[in-house]
Amino acid sequence: MRASAMEGGVVLMVMAVLPMLLLLPFTSGTSQPPNVIIMLMDDMGWGDLGTNGEPSRETPNVDKMARDGLTVTSMYTAAPLCSPSRAALLTGRLPIRNGFYTNNTHGRNAYTPQEIVGGISQSEVLLPELLKSRGYTSGLIGKWHLGHRSPYLPLERGFDYWFGSPNCHLGPYDDVTTPNIPVFRNASMIGRYFEDFAIDESEAVSNMTRLFTEEAVSFIDRQADEGPFFLLWAADATHEPVYASSLYHATSRRGRYGDAVRELDAGVGAILDAVRDAGVDNNTLVVFTSDNGAALVSKQHGGSNGPFLCGKQTTFEGGMRAPGIFWWPGVLSPGSISHQVWTQMDLFSTVLQLAGVTPPEDRELDGLALANSLFHPDQQVLRPVFYYRGDRLMAVRQGSYKMHLWTFSTPPAELEVGINFCPGVDVENVTTPTPTDHSDRPILFNILVDPAERYPIAFNASEYNIQVPVLQQVVSDHRAHLEPGEPQLNWCDPAVMHWAPPGCEELGKCLKIPPSNPTLCVWPH
Amino acid sequence: MRASAMEGGVVLMVMAVLPMLLLLPFTSGTSQPPNVIIMLMDDMGWGDLGTNGEPSRETPNVDKMARDGLTVTSMYTAAPLCSPSRAALLTGRLPIRNGFYTNNTHGRNAYTPQEIVGGISQSEVLLPELLKSRGYTSGLIGKWHLGHRSPYLPLERGFDYWFGSPNCHLGPYDDVTTPNIPVFRNASMIGRYFEDFAIDESEAVSNMTRLFTEEAVSFIDRQADEGPFFLLWAADATHEPVYASSLYHATSRRGRYGDAVRELDAGVGAILDAVRDAGVDNNTLVVFTSDNGAALVSKQHGGSNGPFLCGKQTTFEGGMRAPGIFWWPGVLSPGSISHQVWTQMDLFSTVLQLAGVTPPEDRELDGLALANSLFHPDQQVLRPVFYYRGDRLMAVRQGSYKMHLWTFSTPPAELEVGINFCPGVDVENVTTPTPTDHSDRPILFNILVDPAERYPIAFNASEYNIQVPVLQQVVSDHRAHLEPGEPQLNWCDPAVMHWAPPGCEELGKCLKIPPSNPTLCVWPH
Repeated sequence: MRASAMEGGVVLMVMAVLPMLLLLPFTSGTSQPPNVIIMLMDDMGWGDLGTNGEPSRETPNVDKMARDGLTVTSMYTAAPLCSPSRAALLTGRLPIRNGFYTNNTHGRNAYTPQEIVGGISQSEVLLPELLKSRGYTSGLIGKWHLGHRSPYLPLERGFDYWFGSPNCHLGPYDDVTTPNIPVFRNASMIGRYFEDFAIDESEAVSNMTRLFTEEAVSFIDRQADEGPFFLLWAADATHEPVYASSLYHATSRRGRYGDAVRELDAGVGAILDAVRDAGVDNNTLVVFTSDNGAALVSKQHGGSNGPFLCGKQTTFEGGMRAPGIFWWPGVLSPGSISHQVWTQMDLFSTVLQLAGVTPPEDRELDGLALANSLFHPDQQVLRPVFYYRGDRLMAVRQGSYKMHLWTFSTPPAELEVGINFCPGVDVENVTTPTPTDHSDRPILFNILVDPAERYPIAFNASEYNIQVPVLQQVVSDHRAHLEPGEPQLNWCDPAVMHWAPPGCEELGKCLKIPPSNPTLCVWPH
Repeated sequence: MRASAMEGGVVLMVMAVLPMLLLLPFTSGTSQPPNVIIMLMDDMGWGDLGTNGEPSRETPNVDKMARDGLTVTSMYTAAPLCSPSRAALLTGRLPIRNGFYTNNTHGRNAYTPQEIVGGISQSEVLLPELLKSRGYTSGLIGKWHLGHRSPYLPLERGFDYWFGSPNCHLGPYDDVTTPNIPVFRNASMIGRYFEDFAIDESEAVSNMTRLFTEEAVSFIDRQADEGPFFLLWAADATHEPVYASSLYHATSRRGRYGDAVRELDAGVGAILDAVRDAGVDNNTLVVFTSDNGAALVSKQHGGSNGPFLCGKQTTFEGGMRAPGIFWWPGVLSPGSISHQVWTQMDLFSTVLQLAGVTPPEDRELDGLALANSLFHPDQQVLRPVFYYRGDRLMAVRQGSYKMHLWTFSTPPAELEVGINFCPGVDVENVTTPTPTDHSDRPILFNILVDPAERYPIAFNASEYNIQVPVLQQVVSDHRAHLEPGEPQLNWCDPAVMHWAPPGCEELGKCLKIPPSNPTLCVWPH
């Protein structure tokens, strides 16, 4: 896509692309590339932030981060759920390329539950691996979700430090039919959720956000004087089961989900304070975003996507539009707004650009190096956004327009058991309960005038007949350069579950591994 | 209601209500009560402001006003459409009391089209009339909408200056079957829309926002040294047909509605500048709000209610939750947030409080004097909000809970002709297309956890069984103190249209008045 973006790329405001180094303000003052912290929330919605209008205004630290930094109004995840979204951020490539999808069923979302056999392919190159060439030390604090079998774990893939879990903190399990999820420090487990790291599901209480925050602050303290660092802060308190520590329990106006948000917001404040206290704030880029839209399936215990349509699991804006807040004191203009359209794969390319690392040239990348748009928020590059659900290209946005080739909200069988990814909305011919092919006559929205995707442009409108061919050409160009990766999320096996993670012997926490019984995973939506 | 609010009132944070004068910071420095400017937008939605999350962030002046001032997160209009909402703001009384409703049909919205016979009753006392006792000069710049026959006009009701129109700027009319709407300066018309004050509907261009802004700036310049002033800036560019001047035409990312918003936002900036330039900023309270939710019936040419349900005409949050931004440099804490629940009738009572005027004691008032909550944003008084559609109490909110006694979105006959007040949403048993009586088993929402009104609390939940009786008691108390006013919006007559407004003779713009033919007005929704 990088190649096709170059071919089809139209620079909206400025045609000349200056040599990269001229654009980087820090290069004049220091030879050290910047530290980078990506704060990647889990299932937190665009509308959960005060700065994005959440009525209870319970994110003063993130809001201040936005006031002191730059807000990107169109930040897209690469997928509407966790694993493929995170894999794309760290590889700079769409899941359809890096293999984080399934083709057991076409057009279905897949992720990495603990019975998944696959993980991020060895043939992929991850951001922390690339940053090593410039002397970066990389830390992951929080959820991984790129595969939990040994070759896939973070320390095998460029991270120098890890505290967190390989999978979602679901449970509690009985350790007989299903083992509880382990928590790792570096290459070894140090305990399990619900056993050694408590989560009180009924009260929504756990200390994990506090631990993730303390770990991040310690990492920054340790690394600030030791050359550049990259920190991925992947706290997960807003993923079900949501939680907060007793300090934040029942403090939110918004209920237990809000408690989780409040504690994460305090964590953001503590991390920014740590960066300042370490004296590296002028050389540290911090990005706040989320891995997908709020999980509306959680109903009143889930987050908010503000005005956007539907949520996690869908390719409507509510599924893939994420917060995008950049903070870099002394470098980014305080309170600035950028309408540059970003995907999180651009974080991969832009961090490499800022670090002065040449991106891999042996593969298609979907990320663009957009540092220039951070330093010059009024400048924009026209670029496409592709909305995939599994192996199916559902929609594309470029500029003001978004075109749906396929629509799919929640399958009827799921609706019957109370699962609903689009609760309370019903847009005719758009929030279709079954996968609906509109390829012959796509659904078109002006996503600036109608960000909530409520008013499809009439098929006979001249606007429709001008814009749809433009977007269809974008799709053709994309497909012409697309070589799907080997799907990694097809096979499941109870034997690969967390019976005996590395380090279990020392803890006396190894469980009996059942016989291998690989089956095709079932992905219903 | 004031009495019942006192009886049932629970002070959330602070029990003691200090004597009023002790709370007013300006009283120590000057004997002059503060100037007051209320910026009352027309059909602008809560979600149209950058500070409330509008993705295109096109309201830098209002956003800065919020950063420099105080944001009230729960500001309610008294009705989901213009005339009754405005009448309530200026009388401090619900439309059911001040007569701005119809009972031709029960539970239907009514307003003041130019065939309306009625207007604001002589027995009502308006805010500018009351402010005269403290030497205020009052100006209305923009739309009136409280009745256009001579006794009802602004200069008859306490305003000292008026530039604007008595009704919505609809048209163009042919001046034969229907006359174009006049524009007044003070007691006389000075021209008509589409004739002397151009509105290009097809291009959405008009200079009116520029004129309303210039008029407001002039008023401030004239009055700043002349004792206290009250200015109601009632610009109407976001009411259909939306418009902006050529300077703002096609400048918004959001289309023509956005052009209107951008020019209004610039007007806000110009007015605040004028206040500062006149040196009265430390003695001027400015409030930014809107008369009802965005008119979603206008589809992509209408505004946004952000995450809230439905829009104008409905008693869901999207119909009645308005922006609430207070600005008073040196007095209000910059960037502060207040979760005090306000209604716009509180503006009436609070302005009187600030001015040191005793409110009328011979009638029930629905407004509360809430100056204390401006100066101490963490302090809240528990109080009810009543959501009326015409003469029918549809819902009530108190604290965290909102209870719907009736629900009604858009009647089927209107849906068939493309009118939809709840486009794209469908909440079972809530967005009912016909008026639905839930009095026996009300619909209950936790409006803090679920501001979008998506997840009714289960009828068998203990929360339901605890909270519904509390709210039912609030309703009983309200009804016990309710003496409905004489309905003013029942009768229509072609003879009362703007054939020959005051001043038409001098302009040679008098039209022939047709025979009187009073009929009951038809209010379909």
